[in-house]
Amino acid sequence: MKNKNISSIGEVGLIGIIKNQFATSKNNKNIVVGIGDDCFCFRLGKNTICITKDMLIEGVHFKKDWITPQELGEKAIEVNISDIAAMGNVKPEYAFIGLGIPPITSKIFIRNLFKGFKAACDRHKMTIAGGDTVKSDKIIISVTIVGAGKDKIIKRNGAKTGDVIGVTNTFGDAGAGVALLYKYGTKHKYAKNERLLILKQNNPRARLSESKKISKHLTSLTDASDGLYVSVNLLTRDSNKGSDIYMDQIPVSKTLKKVFKETKEQLDFALFGAEDYELVFTVPETKARLIKKLVPQISYIGKINSSKKVRYFYNGKKQKIKCSGFKHF
Amino acid sequence: MKNKNISSIGEVGLIGIIKNQFATSKNNKNIVVGIGDDCFCFRLGKNTICITKDMLIEGVHFKKDWITPQELGEKAIEVNISDIAAMGNVKPEYAFIGLGIPPITSKIFIRNLFKGFKAACDRHKMTIAGGDTVKSDKIIISVTIVGAGKDKIIKRNGAKTGDVIGVTNTFGDAGAGVALLYKYGTKHKYAKNERLLILKQNNPRARLSESKKISKHLTSLTDASDGLYVSVNLLTRDSNKGSDIYMDQIPVSKTLKKVFKETKEQLDFALFGAEDYELVFTVPETKARLIKKLVPQISYIGKINSSKKVRYFYNGKKQKIKCSGFKHF
Repeated sequence: MKNKNISSIGEVGLIGIIKNQFATSKNNKNIVVGIGDDCFCFRLGKNTICITKDMLIEGVHFKKDWITPQELGEKAIEVNISDIAAMGNVKPEYAFIGLGIPPITSKIFIRNLFKGFKAACDRHKMTIAGGDTVKSDKIIISVTIVGAGKDKIIKRNGAKTGDVIGVTNTFGDAGAGVALLYKYGTKHKYAKNERLLILKQNNPRARLSESKKISKHLTSLTDASDGLYVSVNLLTRDSNKGSDIYMDQIPVSKTLKKVFKETKEQLDFALFGAEDYELVFTVPETKARLIKKLVPQISYIGKINSSKKVRYFYNGKKQKIKCSGFKHF
Repeated sequence: MKNKNISSIGEVGLIGIIKNQFATSKNNKNIVVGIGDDCFCFRLGKNTICITKDMLIEGVHFKKDWITPQELGEKAIEVNISDIAAMGNVKPEYAFIGLGIPPITSKIFIRNLFKGFKAACDRHKMTIAGGDTVKSDKIIISVTIVGAGKDKIIKRNGAKTGDVIGVTNTFGDAGAGVALLYKYGTKHKYAKNERLLILKQNNPRARLSESKKISKHLTSLTDASDGLYVSVNLLTRDSNKGSDIYMDQIPVSKTLKKVFKETKEQLDFALFGAEDYELVFTVPETKARLIKKLVPQISYIGKINSSKKVRYFYNGKKQKIKCSGFKHF
């Protein structure tokens, strides 16, 4: 066996190694959702418990100059709640915060970071339950969130042929915001609309109430943390289906249109710019109108078929799409 | 407000900041144990759920040269299970593994690390439920373990005046093992007994079955991750009591006695050498014999009183003890 390193096998190769080691979930009848969805879920009495865990590392997932400590704290909680929202009507109950802190970190930074944790937890009526702090070279934020619910869990793999594909709001703002920061840095004097895009990058809000309203009607559900392109691919592939995406129906904000005037740019951010944290779901066509009544911001962007391919169309014409998404390793 | 940094306020100062931000647990009647015990525990239906989370960072908590990847994986799980064992008769059910991995990490390292995770989880009939992997400069292992039980949770704060203080086995081996590695490094040709001490450092085993056998009789319980001295202090202080510790009754292994011949050295490792992961508990004196029958390796090392001080005695003579324990920041 050749001993390759992780950067040469990539994230998919790494997940392959990990999955191979753990087929144990098949043997445990209490497990509702095992490795490979937005949360891990297990049954306990009449409840289903959903647990999600994410790690944010300074320099990899955030830069201290680009986001305030309070925004960072809120974001660390919201992105985890987004994974809970991606399971359906589940109430996030408890948050655990593991922190790696360089000893030179200022007291005020920590205080404001925790203000952020608390603000987000208060917003969702959650309790900060515990965690630990350790010394490290860079700031590491490892959040675990525990949610509970009695309703059916909506997995990523339930899409049926003929279902329509919906999204809860516009795409592209967060990706455009981070692109501006990469291009112009923090000293630049940004115009108002540009600042709005940066704010969207730094202040995501999990679509928890939307999920609660619509989830019982859905056949599949996920959240778009790595861009719409990745979410559509995962949902289609995990459901063992195909999908047609109508690019002219992908919703983008007025702000994005003002800052980036070309349609191609806007769609690139929408498809490949990560961190919008909107929900992506499928629903039988007969229920599409009802769902949109419940959450008017919803748009439909495509349809599930049995082709096992994801095809993209713009004004009815088939498009070639090249993925330029975020590579973790 | 002066903006001090974390190294100047220390870990206690840091925990102070964090605790101040979160008094929310008082308002949640489902919370059995909030921040500041070995686990966070909450009630759900007839069950109590216990959750613990620990982060191991390369260079801070382990060195790649000093431990094999499989040992490291097993240890990361065992130290978290030790926190579960410290709550009483709770079954660890699911493990979540968050990994930060430098891209140059070899595939074989990751594979063996996961072999270790799996070996420890299999030993305790647990399921690896999920987690995430991210890019980082150093290896970061963030483990969350979820346990469930129906019995009463044994907190750290229930010791009563007159209770005796017990420990599940010997102390000092793990601390002596790491001291040898610091002194002689990895190239040194170690004698057999020295190697045994290093093995104890690298291969801790959570006292889960011991806890299951004795916990219903106990008044307080914790595990000794940061040394016996720290555990006795926490247990005494949290119970708002005092304690007398009889140093001549602290159990140390034959191996430790062979490698470090002076009693003072042995007791220094026992009190201040961390990572023995034995349980430290209190029990009414009337039950002390019963408990020792259930777990014959148990020793009694002291007694709870109302003095609010922790006093140390050697052969009946009061001793001055100076803490030389591990400082996190």
